[in-house]
Amino acid sequence: MRPRPPKDHRSKPHGRGPQGQTQPPRPESGRERPENWLYGLHAVGAALANPRRKLHRAVLTARAAEALGAKLTGRVRVEPADAEAIGRLLPPGAVHQGAALACDPLPAGDLDEVLASMAGLDPATQSKKRRRIVLVLDQLSDPHNVGAILRTAAAFAVTAVVVQDRHAPPQSGALAKAASGAMEIVPYVEVVNIARALDKLGEAGFWRIALAGDGQETLAQAASQGDIALVLGSEGEGIRRLVREHCDTAAFIPIDQAMESLNVSNAAAIALYEMRRR
Amino acid sequence: MRPRPPKDHRSKPHGRGPQGQTQPPRPESGRERPENWLYGLHAVGAALANPRRKLHRAVLTARAAEALGAKLTGRVRVEPADAEAIGRLLPPGAVHQGAALACDPLPAGDLDEVLASMAGLDPATQSKKRRRIVLVLDQLSDPHNVGAILRTAAAFAVTAVVVQDRHAPPQSGALAKAASGAMEIVPYVEVVNIARALDKLGEAGFWRIALAGDGQETLAQAASQGDIALVLGSEGEGIRRLVREHCDTAAFIPIDQAMESLNVSNAAAIALYEMRRR
Repeated sequence: MRPRPPKDHRSKPHGRGPQGQTQPPRPESGRERPENWLYGLHAVGAALANPRRKLHRAVLTARAAEALGAKLTGRVRVEPADAEAIGRLLPPGAVHQGAALACDPLPAGDLDEVLASMAGLDPATQSKKRRRIVLVLDQLSDPHNVGAILRTAAAFAVTAVVVQDRHAPPQSGALAKAASGAMEIVPYVEVVNIARALDKLGEAGFWRIALAGDGQETLAQAASQGDIALVLGSEGEGIRRLVREHCDTAAFIPIDQAMESLNVSNAAAIALYEMRRR
Repeated sequence: MRPRPPKDHRSKPHGRGPQGQTQPPRPESGRERPENWLYGLHAVGAALANPRRKLHRAVLTARAAEALGAKLTGRVRVEPADAEAIGRLLPPGAVHQGAALACDPLPAGDLDEVLASMAGLDPATQSKKRRRIVLVLDQLSDPHNVGAILRTAAAFAVTAVVVQDRHAPPQSGALAKAASGAMEIVPYVEVVNIARALDKLGEAGFWRIALAGDGQETLAQAASQGDIALVLGSEGEGIRRLVREHCDTAAFIPIDQAMESLNVSNAAAIALYEMRRR
């Protein structure tokens, strides 16, 4: 993994600076901040379709422009380019599929606002049919995993994904590619303190479950009813002790003893399926 | 994605040549084949612990050597190195955690042998308690996805993972890292023809389910009982028509309409959980 760039814009209004954004090799003169690139057809298409996105420019192969369609590409200044030139704008190995989009990051969500707006309402149907689910990511840093979790979260109508601002991977590049458009759908809330966020979730009536291999009950038992806040820890470290102490229970997904653990995005997918299947 | 290296060793006894292996920048003179590298602590540790692995040499940082322990590192010639030197042996960006191991690929599994040896027996307990599950990967090419699927397959005691030899990513590097040691556990069977393998699975009593967003029933309905062969298609193309025609049914995982699909390794994880939870 590449070292994370320094974070020197912590006091911006939205609490989200341009830290960690992909820096193009040839920044345009007069531009103070490096551009924030999304790439991949799904990620770029979803961002173009999102009226909340402030778009700068899209760099597209003819084929990608055709795949996206005139309706979407008409919303932004398009610069035609070949695949190789697009690759030079992005980190090495980026699977861009001929599409790169410079745009602002989405404004960060606020936990209080998200909970207030969603109180008692299902995010998909705006009715109180389904339980609310909030995912809390405790220091997950791999953008592929976080992106994949966002994608699954959107697929299972999660109310919000909560991350700690100091440890969240930037909402661009590899994360956006893995999210496959889900970044435009699921509120992504950055908080200063995960334990405090869990206090708030508890007060709002969420049953807080730490997903951990050494949990005391199965996830199916722990998540049998009600609104759920599910806490996931990083692959190496797991959930921090203090964070776990702010949960109501710890639960595990039953697996064979041949393997120590599941990949965290796969564990999240299974947990979301389990919580939605009833 | 990098282009796959040419495959020029198709007639080897095990049907598995050194194709696609990571080529070190400075091949040793007198060595005809490029070395097959595994990296990452879990992948390297599991390979060192596997008596079926033919080991060549391990290149380790002092910290990684300590983490692996003398019992494992005593099984191979160890060359101490710093992290940077190890990185130069591997593809750019490889998350090696200070551990790289040159070893032969495992001999390819044979479908008939696997089915015969597992007939009626549970792979984990060698008793007929649990259903048998075989995963069939139809042209999945992303090594991260295939590796993650192997990891989940081991976690849910899958009998075998079947791939098409012409389209399988090499069993090293990124695949092995994502598999996190599962390569040593789950039989990985390469077949010439997926449709023919499905015929064999059907004759052996497996109910063949194509996992597809447009399936006619939910996976929970389709997989209610018996031995299951679950077919997964590539992210872009899905399952090929001919392969799907060799399945007994097509099933979907219910998701919100906001997302078109799940990541294939997450879909596999959910499917395996669903098939094992009863």
